[in-house]
This record gives sequence, structure tokens and C-alpha cells, in this order.
Amino acid sequence: MKTRKIVLPESEIPTQWYNVLPDLPTPLEPPLHPGTGQPVGPEDLAPIFPMPLIEQEVSQERFINIPDEVLEKYLIWRPTPLYRAYGLEKYLNTPAKIYFKNEGVSPAGSHKPNTAIAQAYFNKISGTRKLYTETGAGQWGSALAFSCALFGLELKVYMVKISYMHKPYRRIMMETWGANCTASPSTETQSGRTILERDPECPGSLGMAISEAVECAVMEEDSKYSLGSVLNHVMLHQTINGLECQKQMAIAGDYPDIIIGCAGGGSNFAGNCLPFVRDKINGKNIDIIAVEPTSCPTLTRGPFAYDFGDTAQMTPLLPMHTLGHNFVPEAIHAGGLRYHGMAPIISQLLLSNLIRAISVPQLETFKAGVTFARTEGFISAPETNHAIAATIQEALKAREEGKEKVILLNWSGHGLVDMAAYDDYLSGRLKDYALSDEQIQKALVDIEPLVKPVQYKG
Amino acid sequence: MKTRKIVLPESEIPTQWYNVLPDLPTPLEPPLHPGTGQPVGPEDLAPIFPMPLIEQEVSQERFINIPDEVLEKYLIWRPTPLYRAYGLEKYLNTPAKIYFKNEGVSPAGSHKPNTAIAQAYFNKISGTRKLYTETGAGQWGSALAFSCALFGLELKVYMVKISYMHKPYRRIMMETWGANCTASPSTETQSGRTILERDPECPGSLGMAISEAVECAVMEEDSKYSLGSVLNHVMLHQTINGLECQKQMAIAGDYPDIIIGCAGGGSNFAGNCLPFVRDKINGKNIDIIAVEPTSCPTLTRGPFAYDFGDTAQMTPLLPMHTLGHNFVPEAIHAGGLRYHGMAPIISQLLLSNLIRAISVPQLETFKAGVTFARTEGFISAPETNHAIAATIQEALKAREEGKEKVILLNWSGHGLVDMAAYDDYLSGRLKDYALSDEQIQKALVDIEPLVKPVQYKG
Repeated sequence: MKTRKIVLPESEIPTQWYNVLPDLPTPLEPPLHPGTGQPVGPEDLAPIFPMPLIEQEVSQERFINIPDEVLEKYLIWRPTPLYRAYGLEKYLNTPAKIYFKNEGVSPAGSHKPNTAIAQAYFNKISGTRKLYTETGAGQWGSALAFSCALFGLELKVYMVKISYMHKPYRRIMMETWGANCTASPSTETQSGRTILERDPECPGSLGMAISEAVECAVMEEDSKYSLGSVLNHVMLHQTINGLECQKQMAIAGDYPDIIIGCAGGGSNFAGNCLPFVRDKINGKNIDIIAVEPTSCPTLTRGPFAYDFGDTAQMTPLLPMHTLGHNFVPEAIHAGGLRYHGMAPIISQLLLSNLIRAISVPQLETFKAGVTFARTEGFISAPETNHAIAATIQEALKAREEGKEKVILLNWSGHGLVDMAAYDDYLSGRLKDYALSDEQIQKALVDIEPLVKPVQYKG
Repeated sequence: MKTRKIVLPESEIPTQWYNVLPDLPTPLEPPLHPGTGQPVGPEDLAPIFPMPLIEQEVSQERFINIPDEVLEKYLIWRPTPLYRAYGLEKYLNTPAKIYFKNEGVSPAGSHKPNTAIAQAYFNKISGTRKLYTETGAGQWGSALAFSCALFGLELKVYMVKISYMHKPYRRIMMETWGANCTASPSTETQSGRTILERDPECPGSLGMAISEAVECAVMEEDSKYSLGSVLNHVMLHQTINGLECQKQMAIAGDYPDIIIGCAGGGSNFAGNCLPFVRDKINGKNIDIIAVEPTSCPTLTRGPFAYDFGDTAQMTPLLPMHTLGHNFVPEAIHAGGLRYHGMAPIISQLLLSNLIRAISVPQLETFKAGVTFARTEGFISAPETNHAIAATIQEALKAREEGKEKVILLNWSGHGLVDMAAYDDYLSGRLKDYALSDEQIQKALVDIEPLVKPVQYKG
């Protein structure tokens, strides 16, 4: 009898997060103040983040203890199972061994609670009464709503309008957990009103929603802002995934030749791969692949530059790959990948040739998702389907080359709340979007690259 | 640090199902042929079920081996975790210890794959090419679609029209797994057309959808019918739940004083409680409570009688509590509980005072579900909310009485595909339905009770 599931006992759950900062071959450039252009200090961030998270943002400690209160909540769904994808392997007739880490078993259905629980906790102990945040497809917003319910915090979510309309289920999830949710851009904030004056039909973007949430957090007493990706402390919290995975691969008696994850702001990708990046820095030979949509090709076609995290230019300038803070991606169903920027840590890893990036068109991702559902039984989030498409590409390449590669797929979440997207695909309504160089150049008009665009050379 | 989750190691998964038939104090009355009124034999069932399932239907073996191929698929998501509901206990300020068994971790999101996997397997090895079935809210249809994908069987699902319209996500899940799904009553079958002629706006019912599926299975070569509840072999397969639960309660060092599950056709309720019913027969003192909607009060207000399982009177007559095969319940969101009949095993347990039954109105169930989501983090299926409402009732009673009762809640599935129902509730659009004695008497016009209506005396 084939056992597909590699279960890590609760007693083996990692009790520390891994911080990649001290191991980076090239240190990160500092974030810059949006007004002065000078490096930001803790005091600049204090209005929007609680001090423990600000400290984690710049910590040079390689391992940081996970508080008991956070571990206790993690144990609601963690450790998550690692699976051997025998069904998919057989269907592809590949000699590759495919493993996937199932982050979809959390109550919110994705990897996002890994940092949502931690952020809710550190805000709670720092006296925060209410959090503001933004969300794309709703995975982040629902994860934070779940976490705020468990820690007794109020929550207001600005949800990108196109997702708010297309994905009502995640809005209702947030409301069920007690959060308040508004479509962004909204008339509730100055930044929202400015955008709507320019374009009343604006479908919204993560950058715009961030502006609205930050504006509120700054204005209101005892309230803070929470971000679900991009920042160093978010990457830190997500490493619980990869740390578990390392133990589970050891139980399976294998080690990945290839690691694949989808990348929007980078938190899901980082969470799985960072502990393995450390191995790679220490000499392991691993091909680590970030997968993004061809319609939002931040890592594959964007320059590395200082840019704002949001549209209204309220956040610090971050050193990252970017398509420009005014870039509004097409309305693909993988809302979590519709972000113009990227986590500075991930960008730095790309510059250092420790990872590489590819992009996949929408139709190929859904075809891969349907194949996965029919061979492995799990229905995947549209974001996750990007990683599955790349996994299938690599498994077929292994078949051509006759190599028994070990592929680790970071399965970031289930798609049960995204079934409308599958309906569009199965009934032929879904399409691919081509993005011309001119479109990208236009979005980048006021962005000054720090270095030449990078091609992976590994 | 409080550990909420009681995990059963994979090596401890039960390898046999428990069959309650030999332990029943009173043997079941036989099913009767719809035409002759005589007890049905295996040859009568052969056109719609494969022989291994027909044998299980009447087996007097107390334990039946689970084939390796079924266990292998069970291990995709089983053993499922048992949880201690510390958050809910604290919120209710109750001395009761509340445990819940999370059957929502299956890829389809409910307990239904426990029998869907088994039925797909026994059909596959018996040469079945295609299965026909019906579904209410879609939990059963999606579970069977998932299972048929894994075993390479074709599947056609007749979905109750009201749910087909209100719950498109489960239809799309079925299609993603490769099944074909039609709203019932449909024009594809004789029984569907007959119903539509009488009532073109008919919202459908499980009884009608069963008629359509059975009609097709009988007509088509190499095809069989599959039922997700009511029958003995379905109850048998579901006992994997309760058997795991017994081991997990032992790990927790507790034993339930009260067991609570929702009951539509009875499979979810039976799956959890039957192994404990055996303990009760052997002397344990347990209060076992079936919870149904006030709008479809089969056990609480229906007589025990021979009745058809379907509207078109094509199925055998079963000895069960029934509201009449023509009863069409109001369009509550708990579609899986909208069934006029009940599993004969469950009815017999009620007659024997081994279980009792209560009913709960819709609004109370959603209020309970929201409380559960905000205290335990999990969003429950509308069906499951019925069991949660009863659990809260019992936990509050324990508080009044100052008793440290141990309550085991059978948490049958998550509600992530039912968020429209929560939207209706949260925005005040949901309502309760009163059901008059006259309405019930009208539906029961041609039903002859076998015994007087039972009141629980335990």
C-alpha cells in the first residue's frame, strides 16, 4: 500500500522561524522614506506597525523563537502534510518524484495564516485595538480575519474591487469571522477618492488598496496596518512551511532537486524555499523557481528599482523588481499574483542567482489545475495553479531527459472559494493576456532601475 | 501550551468497518419490492448495485475488512483530526469539555468521501463503467465526483434544482473532477418530465433526483446507481469516522457523555455514533442525539412506516421514519438535510431508545455557526451548524447543572462552498419556516405507520 502523506508529528513542529537576512550574500538595500528619500528608521514605521514586527524587519538573528501563543494557534492546522503525487506522476508518465506541501488545510484555506496569526499576536500584545489591511483575491484578508477573531482584534479590509465583485465568498468569510470589508478604491479614504475621480470604473489593484489601509491606520487611534506579503517579517513567519518541509523530506528519504512556488508579493514562495536557500548557500545544488503570471511579470520583465509599495506613494520606497506602482494588471483570477512589486528578499535572491523566475499564461495554469484535481484529488487556488503548471513542465522535461528528479511543489492553497474561475475555464470563457513591451515601459515611466534587468544564469 | 488537536497516527487507521446489524436489539424489517410488496432479494438489487455492496447491505459480519485500495485513498486525508474546542468552551463559560471530529479535511470538504471512495472502488472491480447519482447541496455529488476521478469511472449527477441554482460552486467542483451535472427535475428522464408537467417551477428534492438517477442506471449498459446515505452499506463505510474517534478519545483520556450529529439521510450521524452505539448496547451510558431541521423533521415528527426512498416510487419500500415521499421541504440552506426519509438503521435505533432526536430552526443553526467560526476558527457547513446548535444547547445545560459533561460533536464538513448562506444570514435575509401538523398530515396521506410515533424515553 502506497502512503502518499508524509505527516510530521505535532511534537516536531519547528519552534523557531528562519531569518534569511544574515545569510544573504549581498545585504538588502534599505527602504527609503517616501518624503525625504532617506533610509527609514524604526520611528518612521512605528505609526503603522507594532515594535516587535519592526524589530523582526531588520533583525540579524538567524533563528527567532515562535511565541507559545502563536505555536498554539499554528497547531490548529499545522504541521501541514507533505504529499507524494503518485497520481500526477503516473498520469505524466514521468520518472520525476513529485512532492507537494499542502498549505490549504488551514481554516482560511491557504498559507496566509502563518503570518496572519503572528501579526495578530504581536499587535495584540502591543496594545493594538484594530487592524487595517488590504487584500486581492481575499486569501490574505480572510486569513487575517480568522486570526483577528482568535485574538480578539477588530479588522477592516480593503479588497481590490475586481476581486470583491468576482469573489464574494472570501468577502463573506471575512464577515463571518467578524471583519468589515469594503471594495477598493472606495470613497472612504482620500487616496480612494483621488483614484475614483481619475477613473470611476477603476477595477482596483493591491497597490491602491494598500494606500487606503495605510491612510486609515495612520489616522486612527490604537490602530495599525498589517501587510500580508513583501516585508521581511512576513517572509520570516512563512518559513514555518519550509522548515517543516525539510523535516518531512528527510522522513521521505529524499531531497529536492527542484523547488517550485508561485510568487505574487513573494510570501508563499519565500515561506517554502528560504530554508532551502540556506542549504543552497551552504553548497546544495537546487533549482528554485518562482512562477508568476505572464500578465503580471514582475520578476521576469520588471527592472530592479526603488519603488513604492502602493499607488498613492505612501509606503516607503523598497528595492525590488517592479512593474511600476501605477501598473494595473489584467483581471486574471489569480488575484494574489496581481502585484506590481516583489519582496526585496526575493528580488535580492534573483539578483544573486540563488533563484530563477518564469511566467505562465492563465489558460495553461487552469489546464494544470484541472489535471491536478483529477489525478491528485485536490482543487487548487488559481495562484497555486501557476506552480502546478511549472511542475508539470519540469516533470515532462525530466521524462524527456530520463532523469529521476525530485520536485517539491509548494501547494499554497485550495480553490474551493475560486470555483467561478474554474467555471470560466471549463466553459471556454477564460483567456490569456499578452503584455507588450510598450505597456510595461509606460508603467515604468518614472522608475529608475538600480541595475540592469537580470537574466538567470545558473 | 494547550494542544487542541488529537492526531491519530496513520499506522493506527482502522482497517475494518463496523457493521451494527448483528448488534441491533431488534433486527431491521426487510426492504420491500416496489411492485410486488415482497421482500427484495439480491437479484432485485443487481441492476442498480454491484454485488459486493449488495452483500454488505445484508451482511451479519460485525467487522468487514477495508480493502487496501480503499485504505490507500482514505489516507489522502484520514485519519481526520479530533479537536478540543477550548475557544467555544471559554466563550460559553461551560464546565463541559467539547470535542469535535473534523471530517471537513477531505478534498471534497465533508464526510461523504468515506463511502464515495468505497462505492467507486467496489463498482470499479465489478466492471461498472459509469455511475449515476443524485445530490442535494452537492456534498455527496462532489465527493463521488472526486472518488470517480481517482478510480477512472464516469459519473452523472442529478442535483436538486434549488441547490443547483443556489450552490453553483459544488456543481463546478463536480465538473472540475470530470463529472456531468444536471439540475433535477430535468427533461432528461421520464420521472423528471412527469414532475415538471405537474409543476414546471418545482424546486426539486432528493427524492425526485433519486428517481432520475435510478431510472438512468437501470436503462444504460454497464452503469450502476450510487446512493450517498440511507442504505446499510453506506452507514457501514462511514463508521471509519467513529472508529477513529474511539481511539482518539482514548488518547485524550476522555469518553463522551453526549454525542451529537446532524441527520439528513443518516450517514454522517451513523458514521460517528454507531461504534459508540455498540458501547451503549454493551452497557455504556451515552446520550446520542440526532439533530434535524424543524423544516424537515423526519425523526421528530414523522411516523415509522414503509415508504419509498424516492418520489417516483421506483426504489424499494424501506422501514423508516418518513414525512412521505411526496414531501418537499422548504428551501433551507442545509440541502443535505432536506430528505423525507431516514436510514432504517437510524430509525431502528430511535425505536429502540438507543438514540434520541431533536430539531433546530435555521436561524439558530447559523447563529451557532458564526459563534463557532469566531471561537474555533472553522467555518461550518449549514448541515453541520445544526449539530453545533445542539452542542451549544447541551454545553449551556451543563453550565446550568454545573456538570463537567464530555460532549462529542461530529463536525461533518466545512462551509467554504456555502458562503452565500452565511451572506443571507449576516445580512438578515434568512428566515425560519414553521411546519404545521396539517402540512405533515397532507404529505403522509398514503403512508401507513407501522408503529405509533415514538417519543424518546431514555
